[in-house]
Amino acid sequence: MRDKDTQTPVLTRENRHGVVTLCLNNPAKFNTLSEAMMTALQRELDTIRTDESVRCVVLSGQGKAFCAGHDLREMRSKPDIKYYQALFQQCGQLMQSIVNLPVPVIARVHGIATAAGCQLVASCDLAIASQSARFAVSGINVGLFCSTPAVALSRNIAPKRAFDMLTTGGFIDAPTALEWGLISEVVADNALDAALAAKVETITSKSPSAIRIGKSMFYQQQQMPLEKAYKYAGDVMAGNMMEQDAGEGIDAFLEKRTPIWK
Amino acid sequence: MRDKDTQTPVLTRENRHGVVTLCLNNPAKFNTLSEAMMTALQRELDTIRTDESVRCVVLSGQGKAFCAGHDLREMRSKPDIKYYQALFQQCGQLMQSIVNLPVPVIARVHGIATAAGCQLVASCDLAIASQSARFAVSGINVGLFCSTPAVALSRNIAPKRAFDMLTTGGFIDAPTALEWGLISEVVADNALDAALAAKVETITSKSPSAIRIGKSMFYQQQQMPLEKAYKYAGDVMAGNMMEQDAGEGIDAFLEKRTPIWK
Amino acid sequence: MRDKDTQTPVLTRENRHGVVTLCLNNPAKFNTLSEAMMTALQRELDTIRTDESVRCVVLSGQGKAFCAGHDLREMRSKPDIKYYQALFQQCGQLMQSIVNLPVPVIARVHGIATAAGCQLVASCDLAIASQSARFAVSGINVGLFCSTPAVALSRNIAPKRAFDMLTTGGFIDAPTALEWGLISEVVADNALDAALAAKVETITSKSPSAIRIGKSMFYQQQQMPLEKAYKYAGDVMAGNMMEQDAGEGIDAFLEKRTPIWK
Repeated sequence: MRDKDTQTPVLTRENRHGVVTLCLNNPAKFNTLSEAMMTALQRELDTIRTDESVRCVVLSGQGKAFCAGHDLREMRSKPDIKYYQALFQQCGQLMQSIVNLPVPVIARVHGIATAAGCQLVASCDLAIASQSARFAVSGINVGLFCSTPAVALSRNIAPKRAFDMLTTGGFIDAPTALEWGLISEVVADNALDAALAAKVETITSKSPSAIRIGKSMFYQQQQMPLEKAYKYAGDVMAGNMMEQDAGEGIDAFLEKRTPIWK
Repeated sequence: MRDKDTQTPVLTRENRHGVVTLCLNNPAKFNTLSEAMMTALQRELDTIRTDESVRCVVLSGQGKAFCAGHDLREMRSKPDIKYYQALFQQCGQLMQSIVNLPVPVIARVHGIATAAGCQLVASCDLAIASQSARFAVSGINVGLFCSTPAVALSRNIAPKRAFDMLTTGGFIDAPTALEWGLISEVVADNALDAALAAKVETITSKSPSAIRIGKSMFYQQQQMPLEKAYKYAGDVMAGNMMEQDAGEGIDAFLEKRTPIWK
Repeated sequence: MRDKDTQTPVLTRENRHGVVTLCLNNPAKFNTLSEAMMTALQRELDTIRTDESVRCVVLSGQGKAFCAGHDLREMRSKPDIKYYQALFQQCGQLMQSIVNLPVPVIARVHGIATAAGCQLVASCDLAIASQSARFAVSGINVGLFCSTPAVALSRNIAPKRAFDMLTTGGFIDAPTALEWGLISEVVADNALDAALAAKVETITSKSPSAIRIGKSMFYQQQQMPLEKAYKYAGDVMAGNMMEQDAGEGIDAFLEKRTPIWK
């Protein structure tokens, strides 16, 4: 997909040994989630979902900002309720595709992550931000309460903190986002890529099948009452034990050697 | 409603440009949530609910304490299960009325907020406390586990922290309450009103319709599974886009001018 | 139950004035949750559940570690899906028995608490750890995603923190576990028993019936939507008010004397 004004591809994809980096590539528009951008992202995620060679996804942004949310100019140009309904369903679908992807998705956050850009961060499994990154759900400043971002945000941070952000539109800095649990790591600006590489290295050193089994289980059990969650997780874990990698992993541990995954 | 002993009105109401301050006004009894107090609060909240001129509610307390919870003397004088059932249903109704009110409710907390007083703080959308304020769910000290306060408390803070407070009855100070997410801001004692005014000013500078749309959506989506939450929030946001204020807000943003809300 | 290799009892039980200490007693195997250990723990919890003289349970471990999770050697020796399903259901049952026990269960954590050992900590109502204690859900290191531990962990800490621990297998230290809400207190290594005794003393000084009423209510209401939770908690609290201890506790408070519980 290309930006309708500049005609540059809005998203780039790079694959290094199973680590796919999806880079929002519309810096002139602060990587806004235009229709083109959302369509491009959805297409890549759909491809990754069935590609067993992919181990991990990194979501990053080109230019000064990670992502500034929806493309307000585009939205305003089509004042139609049906269009807006479809647009926000597309957005919700995209965010859920991240959650439902079988491999970990890590946000690489720099600059600003606002509105649906902040929602992207909240929807990823992990998020590593540079010290100078800032986060806001700022729709309220233009009369548009960040309702769909609130879905992801309120599942990451305490309710009064989310409510404050949503009704004031104010920014929080990266250390605050870390303290509140919105992101999982903060590093110096010039250490962002190194921190990301280290996290990717750690996760991809684990058994691919165990990570896939675990991610799906993690989000599903969270929505269940305790008893049902335990029944489900117990059966998942029993299945995991029958995988070749679990046998190899435990044998390697008992024999004090490095496991060789399938 | 008046206090049955002192005959003074237990609640005062002040309205400044759509900002309603409800002040618990029974300092001799540490603003306990007597039947009279709960009835008075419920009555005001019911009025505010349908009053479109109200933009924000502040809940404060007169005297040394914010609120010391239920009126134990009054409760003890009527040892009847039906009475107690009705009393706690009235209290639960009151707390839910705060959550269900279409405008933000901010607690202004000083002194102590204990038992149902702590529940009041937890039930508000935001809470600004003075540095010296302290919080406890202390019913356990008199053989009465704070069950209804636990409902609000456990939806604000982590389970082990809530369990500790509920089974020890111990106080936490304002910085701890902030760190745990029970309140949203702590300021020096002499800066409490200024901090409150600043927050009210920020929130009332936003589109009234967007704030109303957002608050209701915020709490409803939290109780839904992810997929349903996104469907719902997406439709709410589409409706928000069709509001005059969203059009004006986005236009003003694109034209780099200040929006004028309806 | 005895360890099948060493033939020593895997669990010891001590009862001092209604405070039962269950001590995992297989230090040579880092107190792993072998079948024998889980069966022994389940048996004691089942006994405690109907013993009205018990006021509080402490869960501790002998030797260098609190608990290192499942017994991998034992598990690996029986590669059968039905066996694993039964094993993880037994484990889930055990963890839920802690939650459903009518009295508070406090983990006394030293050394390491890993995988199902970390899950034990997460499943207790409170957890006091020594400064040098460390926590991990490290199954992923052997190709076995900690699915059942994730159930307890994700109900204690924010999702990105849980996901990070589960997919990296990395350790967090005790201060981090406290900051994240996984445990409720951290003390110097040589102050662990004193801190535990102080917490037990505080909780057992309260009304036994109120604590029992409260613990059960606490976990049940958390799984309900807000309106249902308030209806339920209100009725529980009304029942609590009819207990002799509540009458005595409130009377003592009003008369400024120490209550005498039933």
